[in-house]
Amino acid sequence: MSYKDLSNVFEKYNHIQHINGVLYWDESSMMPKGGGSIRSKAIATLNTLGHNMLLDLTLIDKCSAAKSESLEAWEEKNLALMERQLKINQGFTPDFIERKSLLASKCEQLWPDFKKNNDWNGFKPYLQKLVDISIEESKILSDLLELNPYDALLDKYEPGLLMEHIDPVFDALKKELPQLVQEITKKQKSKPQPFCKVPQEKQRSLSLFLMKKLGFDFERGRLDTSPHPFCGGDPRDVRLTTKYHEEDFSSSIMGVLHETGHAMYEQGLPQKWLDQPVGKAIGMAAHESQSLFIEMQICRSEEFIQFLQPHLEEHFGKDTSLSLENLRQNYRNVEPGFIRIDADEVTYPLHIVLRYELERALFDGSLKVDDVAEAWNSKMETYLGINPKDQHSKGCLQDVHWPAALFGYFPSYTLGALIAAQLKETMQKALPNMKQDLLSGDFSNIFKWLRSNFHEHGSFYTTPELIQKITGQSVSEKAYLDNIRIRYLG
Amino acid sequence: MSYKDLSNVFEKYNHIQHINGVLYWDESSMMPKGGGSIRSKAIATLNTLGHNMLLDLTLIDKCSAAKSESLEAWEEKNLALMERQLKINQGFTPDFIERKSLLASKCEQLWPDFKKNNDWNGFKPYLQKLVDISIEESKILSDLLELNPYDALLDKYEPGLLMEHIDPVFDALKKELPQLVQEITKKQKSKPQPFCKVPQEKQRSLSLFLMKKLGFDFERGRLDTSPHPFCGGDPRDVRLTTKYHEEDFSSSIMGVLHETGHAMYEQGLPQKWLDQPVGKAIGMAAHESQSLFIEMQICRSEEFIQFLQPHLEEHFGKDTSLSLENLRQNYRNVEPGFIRIDADEVTYPLHIVLRYELERALFDGSLKVDDVAEAWNSKMETYLGINPKDQHSKGCLQDVHWPAALFGYFPSYTLGALIAAQLKETMQKALPNMKQDLLSGDFSNIFKWLRSNFHEHGSFYTTPELIQKITGQSVSEKAYLDNIRIRYLG
Repeated sequence: MSYKDLSNVFEKYNHIQHINGVLYWDESSMMPKGGGSIRSKAIATLNTLGHNMLLDLTLIDKCSAAKSESLEAWEEKNLALMERQLKINQGFTPDFIERKSLLASKCEQLWPDFKKNNDWNGFKPYLQKLVDISIEESKILSDLLELNPYDALLDKYEPGLLMEHIDPVFDALKKELPQLVQEITKKQKSKPQPFCKVPQEKQRSLSLFLMKKLGFDFERGRLDTSPHPFCGGDPRDVRLTTKYHEEDFSSSIMGVLHETGHAMYEQGLPQKWLDQPVGKAIGMAAHESQSLFIEMQICRSEEFIQFLQPHLEEHFGKDTSLSLENLRQNYRNVEPGFIRIDADEVTYPLHIVLRYELERALFDGSLKVDDVAEAWNSKMETYLGINPKDQHSKGCLQDVHWPAALFGYFPSYTLGALIAAQLKETMQKALPNMKQDLLSGDFSNIFKWLRSNFHEHGSFYTTPELIQKITGQSVSEKAYLDNIRIRYLG
Repeated sequence: MSYKDLSNVFEKYNHIQHINGVLYWDESSMMPKGGGSIRSKAIATLNTLGHNMLLDLTLIDKCSAAKSESLEAWEEKNLALMERQLKINQGFTPDFIERKSLLASKCEQLWPDFKKNNDWNGFKPYLQKLVDISIEESKILSDLLELNPYDALLDKYEPGLLMEHIDPVFDALKKELPQLVQEITKKQKSKPQPFCKVPQEKQRSLSLFLMKKLGFDFERGRLDTSPHPFCGGDPRDVRLTTKYHEEDFSSSIMGVLHETGHAMYEQGLPQKWLDQPVGKAIGMAAHESQSLFIEMQICRSEEFIQFLQPHLEEHFGKDTSLSLENLRQNYRNVEPGFIRIDADEVTYPLHIVLRYELERALFDGSLKVDDVAEAWNSKMETYLGINPKDQHSKGCLQDVHWPAALFGYFPSYTLGALIAAQLKETMQKALPNMKQDLLSGDFSNIFKWLRSNFHEHGSFYTTPELIQKITGQSVSEKAYLDNIRIRYLG
């Protein structure tokens, strides 16, 4: 009875999350500029209403009562997740929720202009406010969860993957990658030939073809465009976006494949539990492991490139830049650059290590907002040997995460990349015909494996638990580094 | 102090309305089918949350207290509208709001298939539920507002325009129009030549050109497609839709012009009051008067056709079907038909009279749901001399209004058409250069007049009050019939 009451409340809470998903997608891909101010306020009101739903103090009592009810394993896990959510929720006042929602929404809307105008000084006061409110949040979470404040933020995005897990892994990457980057770039003989120009409509048509091939269900989702590609919405209505560059189709195609990895995870979540916490994706590292599995492990493989090549010619027409050799070179070009989202899979983790270290320092007080740009540039110099200097739009102004107050989110990208490599390693043993499948563009066995081993577990396990269960190992850099060595130096 | 508290509550209530606008637009123009079920539930939850916002009983006390505060005229009017809204709101339980929202949303999603399959028998049980819940609603409103139950529904869509106002006007139309239709169709020598086929993209490009010409602000709105054109969203972010038919561009172009009339009203509402009840459009008859003013009074005028013709050739290429003479014939072809939304301006009101009479009978109990189809066909025979027989998708299954539980809405269309003609009559006296402006495609004076005389008043006046103020007359059929006689028989 108490469990049923709780799950009813959380079903309605999920409606708020559904609406938030639609509003976010709309704001990012459809909304005209004039709608920005009322939209921010409406989202803040919605978030406050959602927050208030879980504020009812009797709900915590119901959690205690529900524990003595006869529950099946999934219900038990769901109850634990509900209790955690209630506990977190009740630590925050509605005023805090509204303040943070308004601030983040406003800053996210202002940020594109700061970036466009390279206006770091203009953005700094906002970053200060964003850091301040996130410190306030991290302290409240820290008390509630008995975690270090920055750990409490990490825990929001990937429960249970904290600094003690991240540090040894990131240390290994910091040690290995700069050396590997040097070896790989030395080995690369020539720069790839730039791809031919391809009109947006043809790129879209190939994108839809590839999404269908991967098994994306268009009855439960759609593809649109936005300045920053993402995958959002609801498992029953997944909203993917990409951005088309006529002069570089591979960026949009890889973007679509990446987001389709996210989308397949969402569409593969356990149908019975979609409206409950236990039916959700575990966290952002788990999510990134699915998108990066597709983008990096599958779609940059020799077999996928061989499958893709004739379809490129069929959709775009013949061109020397579409040769197998040039595709390989483009898809596996390693080169330190300023921009995280344009980074290859080898240099990418160094972009993340940099952000992780800066955030930690911001949150333990050893770095001031005023000194972020300098610290950024100096770390870029150390890890990647390049320095954006006063081009802040290519430096500390480049990402939407800080304007959106998403501190603690960045490590998910690299943790996801490592997990993706671990999954590939395990999957290859389970699916002996995997290479043949990829050559013929048959993804059914791959997704069948991902569905039953990963997607269908929802949040029943934490990510470290699930990876242990699937691979027999903890989250580690080993498979990722092995793959890099074979792919680029093998 | 009390007034300020109330206006804060209503500002947040408006956020819910804003979100509802986005969700409705998304569902109608973007959402894949799989999202339907969760969307219905999410909207029901949102509506219940909005309803609960206004349930607080102390708000009514604040209304009383606010009356003794020193308020300016707009605040006073706003207070009266807030009090009315609170009174209505507090008459309904959250359970009723959720039940009605779920039912209407579900039926609206099911209806396209019933219509496609001509499945009147399948739809009937749903219609019964829709009528039942709307009767329940009408009785509650009837007690609260001291109105006849069907009047209480009419009052929802256009406050103050009730059966006692509608009956004499509709009686006059019923008397005059069948005769006029006969005279006009007799006078029409030949059928217009069908328009040339025009690809969707070219129609869209002309649509955007015309919207810009009319003065639509694309920083505060956008144009998309949906199966049923509408204008929704928020005055700061107006969402228009149309539907393109390659074989009949005039339907989409006229659709866009119609919806742009709605949109210009929204964009012209008083900026200072957009988040308050007094800043909203008055009602649906007022809204239709703006869309039909543009579509019928302006865009079927001789001057507009002369302005439009070279732009059609410029966008679509030369074709004999784009001659001035053929445009005139197409835009002024009168012919009784089954479908309301395809009806010309002369037969249109008879479609409305039919629906109005059926609804009244459903709500006073003299008509049963089981007998609706027969009653529909018999009235079509009487008023328009045609009978859809068992083609119900061209008869009583054609409109979305009943599936969406919008009983009492239909009269707004014809009341709007009559008001549009009254506005044109008055405007012509105020703007002696109007015809010249239209010939040159200059709409600035027309909209300047509409803004200051109509749009900027928001809900400060009721529609009958505003029409009296602008035209010196009550809402009447006279200007409409005069225009018909001059345009078609003159």
